[in-house]
Amino acid sequence: MSRAFNFSAGPATLPQAVLEQAQAEMLDWHGVGASIVELSHRGPEFMQVAAEAEADLRTLMSIPDDYAVLFLQGGATMQQALLALNFAEPGQAADYVVTGHWGKTALKQVNHYVQAHVAASGEAGGFRDIPPRADWTLTPGAAYVHVTANETIHGVEFRELPDVGDVPLFADFSSSIVSEPLDVSRFGVIYAGAQKNLGPVGVSVVIVRRDLLERAGQPRADILDYRSHVKGESMLNTPPTWNWYLAGLVFKWMLAEGGVEEFAARNARKSALLYRTIDGSDGFYRNEVAPAVRSRMNVPFFLRDEALDKPFLAEAKDAGLISLKGHRALGGMRASIYNAMPEAGVEALAAFMRDFQQRHG
Amino acid sequence: MSRAFNFSAGPATLPQAVLEQAQAEMLDWHGVGASIVELSHRGPEFMQVAAEAEADLRTLMSIPDDYAVLFLQGGATMQQALLALNFAEPGQAADYVVTGHWGKTALKQVNHYVQAHVAASGEAGGFRDIPPRADWTLTPGAAYVHVTANETIHGVEFRELPDVGDVPLFADFSSSIVSEPLDVSRFGVIYAGAQKNLGPVGVSVVIVRRDLLERAGQPRADILDYRSHVKGESMLNTPPTWNWYLAGLVFKWMLAEGGVEEFAARNARKSALLYRTIDGSDGFYRNEVAPAVRSRMNVPFFLRDEALDKPFLAEAKDAGLISLKGHRALGGMRASIYNAMPEAGVEALAAFMRDFQQRHG
Repeated sequence: MSRAFNFSAGPATLPQAVLEQAQAEMLDWHGVGASIVELSHRGPEFMQVAAEAEADLRTLMSIPDDYAVLFLQGGATMQQALLALNFAEPGQAADYVVTGHWGKTALKQVNHYVQAHVAASGEAGGFRDIPPRADWTLTPGAAYVHVTANETIHGVEFRELPDVGDVPLFADFSSSIVSEPLDVSRFGVIYAGAQKNLGPVGVSVVIVRRDLLERAGQPRADILDYRSHVKGESMLNTPPTWNWYLAGLVFKWMLAEGGVEEFAARNARKSALLYRTIDGSDGFYRNEVAPAVRSRMNVPFFLRDEALDKPFLAEAKDAGLISLKGHRALGGMRASIYNAMPEAGVEALAAFMRDFQQRHG
Repeated sequence: MSRAFNFSAGPATLPQAVLEQAQAEMLDWHGVGASIVELSHRGPEFMQVAAEAEADLRTLMSIPDDYAVLFLQGGATMQQALLALNFAEPGQAADYVVTGHWGKTALKQVNHYVQAHVAASGEAGGFRDIPPRADWTLTPGAAYVHVTANETIHGVEFRELPDVGDVPLFADFSSSIVSEPLDVSRFGVIYAGAQKNLGPVGVSVVIVRRDLLERAGQPRADILDYRSHVKGESMLNTPPTWNWYLAGLVFKWMLAEGGVEEFAARNARKSALLYRTIDGSDGFYRNEVAPAVRSRMNVPFFLRDEALDKPFLAEAKDAGLISLKGHRALGGMRASIYNAMPEAGVEALAAFMRDFQQRHG
């Protein structure tokens, strides 16, 4: 098969130009006689790759100088544990706003470390809406407030930044980072697994307001200490160099394409087309999320007749549209349309959906 | 430049056949229309890759069924912290045998969790020898005894397995795993960062005797819990799929080449040739490690005249021999000659060393 349009939620589709460059450089990076994945992380070649990746991400996201940027292993889940270990005192309160599956996961990592308090939850409503800020019950003296900017499974996304006063706002941006301009200065910590919008799986980005690093936190190993990682410039131990390199290629591709403003416009068009196709199907397809908080990145939808799920997936695959099966927690379908999904891919999906409905409706 | 012989200590050289396969599959894995790095870790394609990698490693190492095999992020350093968190009670004694830089690093990760006790150390002798088992002072009731099977920087390697009685032996095998046959049943835990003998950076292998998983350990996040990783089949969160895939290609390559017995023979020949070249140089080159514990993987050596270090490195590079500079902690040179370093590479290095000596000696 040639390249399909791949709607996987993560690991997710990568820009073809990035894959082609990685392919061309696989046996010999820039004439040094070895692949970048075979070179020391402390050698001049990889140090340059690493520095450029950080600089490019800082440019893309307009990250202020008083924020450190880390490239770490362990995924977003590991960062969820480290947030509590690094920024809360043992047993201190920490507020969690739970708007889907990943907010619940975040909570699960910190029970041993903090007094985790659910300040608000959309669970009673099946995570189809985000509880309004006015309904949140924040805890005085909390170490931080944690939100999930975009819920990959439930398809809800914060479209406005909540005001939480002087308490630092920590946000899991795994599935929506660099999808539109963001005011980084509103956050204490932004973290993201890279395997959705940033590039390859196996590396995570953590953006930390430096003053928070002065917090004592809890007794922890050196490898679990963000201060040590900042001091070691994300090379406290051997970093995932190939993954970091591939993320760097994605950053350069994004900058060349026009940066986050351009991707924000594309993502708005892509998601609008998909929701329009769903909403205009007379109920043949449905998305149950409150329109104001519908995700621009992950569009879960259901067919009215579940018996058509299998034919839908099979015919879509034949049409070169893959990885549309919904998460097992929800069933149905899900189209993940991160930055690297071209508009042509979403147009092809929308056309296929209309055609499928005509034939099976 | 075409492919050089790359003596990097890790990330390290990979088999060219493996890189060529990864290159060929970069845009389309087995005709599915996407790269393996773009596919869900829970989809049938990657599940197959993951299962084959584990099965092949079990075959390569003859891993008994009562051992679990994990593919995790975080590197060996992360595992060092997790060993204490998972297998020792808070403040319980744990014995560390320190035979080089990485043994010291292991110790550094656990101070908050266990009563770490240095049972033996080669530091007074500059880590040029391994203290004999008879001189170790083991602690009654220790949770485990930790050793570093091969010290990448100091170039010392256990050539005999120490008997530590009923206390489980935990070993960092990052730089010598699968380099020769090993009796896994002698160990409680074997762990290794993959970026030396196993393949790419960004994934670690942990081999755990299952009965140890019943130990309560210490309060810890789910993501820091080996039991959760075992239960989740190393997919508690999104694993580093591409790195895992590349390691799997290395395992298949090793099996096709003849397995660990064949690599043991090659590694013996490679290291013998290099030590013979050094020892036969009338002191022009020197390696200071006690011959009985010299590493077969990492050969540090020094030129009698330090002023020749720079010309040595420059001329070696011109001869297609790269990454020979020693670790900054020791200076001098280091040739890392893992499984993927062909015998032709070591022969070329030995020939270059003799030639360099003739011209500069």
